Amino acid sequence: MRSSGRRERKKAEVRQALADATLRLALEHGFENVTVEAIADEVDVSARTFSNYFSSKEEALFATHPRSAGRLSSEWLSAAIAERDPDESPVAVLAAVLGQIAQDLADRTAWWSKMAVVAQSPHLQMRLAAQLSRLEVVMAQGVARRSGRDLGSDPYPALVAVAATGALRVALTHWRSRPGQSLPELLGELFAELTAGLPDVPPPHDPVSESRPR
Amino acid sequence: MRSSGRRERKKAEVRQALADATLRLALEHGFENVTVEAIADEVDVSARTFSNYFSSKEEALFATHPRSAGRLSSEWLSAAIAERDPDESPVAVLAAVLGQIAQDLADRTAWWSKMAVVAQSPHLQMRLAAQLSRLEVVMAQGVARRSGRDLGSDPYPALVAVAATGALRVALTHWRSRPGQSLPELLGELFAELTAGLPDVPPPHDPVSESRPR
Repeated sequence: MRSSGRRERKKAEVRQALADATLRLALEHGFENVTVEAIADEVDVSARTFSNYFSSKEEALFATHPRSAGRLSSEWLSAAIAERDPDESPVAVLAAVLGQIAQDLADRTAWWSKMAVVAQSPHLQMRLAAQLSRLEVVMAQGVARRSGRDLGSDPYPALVAVAATGALRVALTHWRSRPGQSLPELLGELFAELTAGLPDVPPPHDPVSESRPR
Repeated sequence: MRSSGRRERKKAEVRQALADATLRLALEHGFENVTVEAIADEVDVSARTFSNYFSSKEEALFATHPRSAGRLSSEWLSAAIAERDPDESPVAVLAAVLGQIAQDLADRTAWWSKMAVVAQSPHLQMRLAAQLSRLEVVMAQGVARRSGRDLGSDPYPALVAVAATGALRVALTHWRSRPGQSLPELLGELFAELTAGLPDVPPPHDPVSESRPR
């Protein structure tokens, strides 16, 4: 048992090292100039070993903790939505599950480095947009199932899903300018504005973010 | 004056004929197989004449009435947002200006034919997505200006813009399943749900759409 735990730990380390090397090389040379061979070299493993962990350099770039990779999957999201208390409103449900995803993305430096790489490449931008679209579809399906609405004829589930994905996108974009606030906190604030019907109430003076050193 | 009016009318006719021919040929042969020469041939003008009206076959495909082409521009949208009553809330302002855009798109058949062409081509999908992103940015800037908020540090303008663009996207997608409802009406309904904070209230029985023949 002990040696199996060690093996798992070792595997997680190699996975993380490959993901880190992908990001580092992409920042240095540009993502399109990075090969799987170069990433494997950097970690001193073979390209074949790389392929045991990731199916492509794109996957290695977007890899986070194995748990959060799972959370960004349609299966996790779908199950997470289904498992919430039946009395919760759809907006509250999506706020809760996206809040869990936001916790996994909460390493500010890694996230912004990744976004710098994505900004270089239209291909990566499309991939990220496609991933958000998939999450949106799964959320709409989850909401439709919970509220007994028909996804084809009733626009409500799609509207809630689009607004929720939008809140996540805005949180990810504005997080950088909020040194005093965690990503889940900012996302929670945006969901509160959605739930209130987006009233135009200027935010209160925020002593926390102003007194915190940058 | 009379001959100048005739000239303008004639130009509008050629423009519309080129746009119609682009859509027709794209539906028939696939958008990527359609050349500017073939479109011009179809209308019996030269490729050079085509280029007096449109800079590319993509532009010809997305062309609608000259007025609505203008409305989809950043300049129109920006001015329209600035001109609304200062007492209106940001959501109400975006509902009003997107409602005007929706009126221009209200030809159901033409819209769905265009969407069928867009569905064939990842390139056109990206172009449409880029256009929606541009509208989103202009809306966020307009809201920031109206509410005296800072676009960089305050996520509210972006959140309202993202939710509004989302409502437009959902309206465009669900409109097909709503034979009794116009696009501006459906969009208005979705904005009402946004303003109410997206409560999970099943829609009332709708005698209009059910009694109308399909």
